[in-house]
Amino acid sequence: MIASVDPRTGIVVEEIGEPTGDLDEVCARAEPALTDLVDLGRAGRAAMLRAMAAALEVRRAQIVAVADRETGLGPQRLGTELTRTTFQLELFAQVLEEGAYLEATIDHAGTTPAGPRPDLRRLLTPLGPVAVFGASNFPLAFSVPGGDTASALAAGCPVVVLGHDAHPATSVLAAEALLEGARAAGLHSSVVGLTFGHANALRLVGHPAMRAIGFTGSVRVGRMLADLAAARPDPIPFYGELGAMNTVVVCPAAASDRGAQIGAGLAASMLLGVGQFCTKPGVAILPAGTAGAAIREAVLERIESAPAGTMLSDRIATAYAFGTSRLVQTPGVEVLARGGGTPDGGSWGTPLVLGADPDALHGDLVEECFGPVLLLVEYSSDEEALAILRRFGPGLTATVHADAADRTFARRLLDLATRTVGRVVWNGFPTGVAVTWAMHHGGPYPATTNALHTSVGATAIRRWLRPVCYQDVPEDLLPDELRDVPTAALTRRVDGRLRLES
Amino acid sequence: MIASVDPRTGIVVEEIGEPTGDLDEVCARAEPALTDLVDLGRAGRAAMLRAMAAALEVRRAQIVAVADRETGLGPQRLGTELTRTTFQLELFAQVLEEGAYLEATIDHAGTTPAGPRPDLRRLLTPLGPVAVFGASNFPLAFSVPGGDTASALAAGCPVVVLGHDAHPATSVLAAEALLEGARAAGLHSSVVGLTFGHANALRLVGHPAMRAIGFTGSVRVGRMLADLAAARPDPIPFYGELGAMNTVVVCPAAASDRGAQIGAGLAASMLLGVGQFCTKPGVAILPAGTAGAAIREAVLERIESAPAGTMLSDRIATAYAFGTSRLVQTPGVEVLARGGGTPDGGSWGTPLVLGADPDALHGDLVEECFGPVLLLVEYSSDEEALAILRRFGPGLTATVHADAADRTFARRLLDLATRTVGRVVWNGFPTGVAVTWAMHHGGPYPATTNALHTSVGATAIRRWLRPVCYQDVPEDLLPDELRDVPTAALTRRVDGRLRLES
Repeated sequence: MIASVDPRTGIVVEEIGEPTGDLDEVCARAEPALTDLVDLGRAGRAAMLRAMAAALEVRRAQIVAVADRETGLGPQRLGTELTRTTFQLELFAQVLEEGAYLEATIDHAGTTPAGPRPDLRRLLTPLGPVAVFGASNFPLAFSVPGGDTASALAAGCPVVVLGHDAHPATSVLAAEALLEGARAAGLHSSVVGLTFGHANALRLVGHPAMRAIGFTGSVRVGRMLADLAAARPDPIPFYGELGAMNTVVVCPAAASDRGAQIGAGLAASMLLGVGQFCTKPGVAILPAGTAGAAIREAVLERIESAPAGTMLSDRIATAYAFGTSRLVQTPGVEVLARGGGTPDGGSWGTPLVLGADPDALHGDLVEECFGPVLLLVEYSSDEEALAILRRFGPGLTATVHADAADRTFARRLLDLATRTVGRVVWNGFPTGVAVTWAMHHGGPYPATTNALHTSVGATAIRRWLRPVCYQDVPEDLLPDELRDVPTAALTRRVDGRLRLES
Repeated sequence: MIASVDPRTGIVVEEIGEPTGDLDEVCARAEPALTDLVDLGRAGRAAMLRAMAAALEVRRAQIVAVADRETGLGPQRLGTELTRTTFQLELFAQVLEEGAYLEATIDHAGTTPAGPRPDLRRLLTPLGPVAVFGASNFPLAFSVPGGDTASALAAGCPVVVLGHDAHPATSVLAAEALLEGARAAGLHSSVVGLTFGHANALRLVGHPAMRAIGFTGSVRVGRMLADLAAARPDPIPFYGELGAMNTVVVCPAAASDRGAQIGAGLAASMLLGVGQFCTKPGVAILPAGTAGAAIREAVLERIESAPAGTMLSDRIATAYAFGTSRLVQTPGVEVLARGGGTPDGGSWGTPLVLGADPDALHGDLVEECFGPVLLLVEYSSDEEALAILRRFGPGLTATVHADAADRTFARRLLDLATRTVGRVVWNGFPTGVAVTWAMHHGGPYPATTNALHTSVGATAIRRWLRPVCYQDVPEDLLPDELRDVPTAALTRRVDGRLRLES
């Protein structure tokens, strides 16, 4: 039984039973579901994803209410999050209909300068059943029905979700909706399984039936699980989206021109969801002197008047309190602003802004602290700003605020950011990760455990697919998408040339 | 100093000095080369790859002669291999010119059902310097100038090669040619470094400057290095192409119709390069009775008359002798044919065909033995053949020989093969891996350590690239390929739609 706790009060509201039985049984049921998903074909899987979205919509009021009670994130935010999730299912339905994601490639038999070649036809095929770890901070968008699940099902991979302990009732509701959607599309096998608990987390990563893992969470847990996946007798891909500092650099002219506005935006971005976003700005690198001072004042003013916020769970609130107390005690660090105190009972976090000496930037100070804490660091020259940025190493995002007069310096910052992060933000803030074709949510370690692939956006589907090549196989034994004349036209590469169909 | 040995005699012909100095220096020189390769742009890197091919051609006679003296593979095979290598450089030049490999994607700012989205532009960017491990069995195609090096340089990643001890002089010659090609293209930095030795192999995988590893070799060494890469403070991708049994299943009608022809093809494929291909057929699964007997007889006849062949090195010849003696002593295994004996001196391997009882298929019998040994197994029913095929687990390839009358059975074999290997061959043999767009050379572990990507063919370039996304970045600060109007047209996805340019 898993306790479903209200983080606003700390009270256990209900106890949730294991929804789908023993882990071995859950994994065993995923294997035949692979054949069913493959047999459905692209059009059938697109219909299934849409039916899943519809089934979530039918339960919208209930899902949002239960998720709010379990996470304290508020009905408005959770409503938006559910809309994002159903939109994501629709996007992957469109990806399937288009079909270019298969990378279907036909090289007819012929001669090449390196000799004759047989008829070769390549496309991407699902890896097999995969495990998805629900994240605490997005109970609908990075959990049972989130981007990992949607992209894996689209690829044709059955999913076993390790539900997050911080929202078990939400997880059960969402899993029921997804399975109802599958049944509405004529699929009665276990395309989505659900399990809970730390012991099952470890067993899942090591389970022979699992062919890949999707994870969103901390560096500590993510690395431990990645190491387990790599140490299997048959290592499998581990797609972990871990932690990042999400550096923000403000150039001098931008700071002079619109310091108050930048400061207000920074405070709002850092407070969003009580600082519990993987893209929360963790550090702002500001010009010393009056230009930077305007930003600083705008940030501090907002944080001092900000109330404590409900955090996702008692464990997370405790980790935040512990983490910030370590930061505060670090030599070279001073407290610049503190928000409202935490009430008794429940899981609360007090917003906090710290100033740091550039020389102090190592250890805890350059690592993510999950929650509403922001570090301010000042620079006195372009070189110093670049050196400070390098201290924070690879990450998910880097943000540059610059005006026309900052152009030369900004270009150097962009060049460094391109080499070290997955998304470069210009005159904006890193929170907000749009579900779209061009999005990339990832970055070199420790931002993610696999920098080559994204966990958000249409290309997230690539993580669950591997190529297979058919040599001289007769037309009628080939997958439809590799026949000379497929049933439905799709973009393919034929004899070296891309041929567009849409 | 590394000894350059003639495997036909076992005599050390020359001693090769470390060509490019201390490993830390080699790696340090790779980092500025990254900037140079990126600055060259796609057209500049295409010119560089062609200049490298030209520099190899200028040295063709010398390279083939030295490689033959070091490997015993013979001038004809090595000439073909060099042609393959220069063709491969040309193919990647074409991949660069086309530009679709960048996956350039533009989503203009707008509104979506999930809310407003900023301007987002994504493309693939080089990972950074990478290490490539030369393989003993393809001194020109999977070594200093092979597919890993060509695809990494095309991507914009400088390469540090761990040259194989079995052909050090060839490696030095090839590295000189590649650097001369780079200089001809105006690039004077260390785009290709070369080092040798077991100690440097381990240091290279752990070196902070290295961002990915390409490897072709044994399961034992590959797994050890993959584990090292995964255990780094910052884990990096390890693309290991390891071992495979390359199963061949012959269906009953095909066996009856053309048993002698299939047997002759099987023997030739297994003897190619003295069995030292990663795609060597390791086991043939044949129908019991007269149909299978014709294949068996044709194989045995050819193997009994085959001479011993020069193997690549004394270490490999010793491993082959040891491995086959273990197989011969396994219960349930009988020797069916043995080729010519090995002369004194040098590194030799005797061709060998073994028969195995289906019940004996575990342990050594289902794992690759590098060299000219083939296992024959008989089946009495479709179910038994499928069960035998499953015993061999995942692999690089699976081959099916079938006629029209075998169609139902063949479809079941193809379905199983699609789920377990990277390339499915129909009425052919697995040796021969064409360099083309549709080729896939890879497969689930232990065939490779990363089943998502190939080490042969145009898409091999994807291994050395990671996505980066620009949010609201002004046109003039974006990479050329992401501007609304790029200098040279290329295929991109704009606002969700692929737009073809060629």
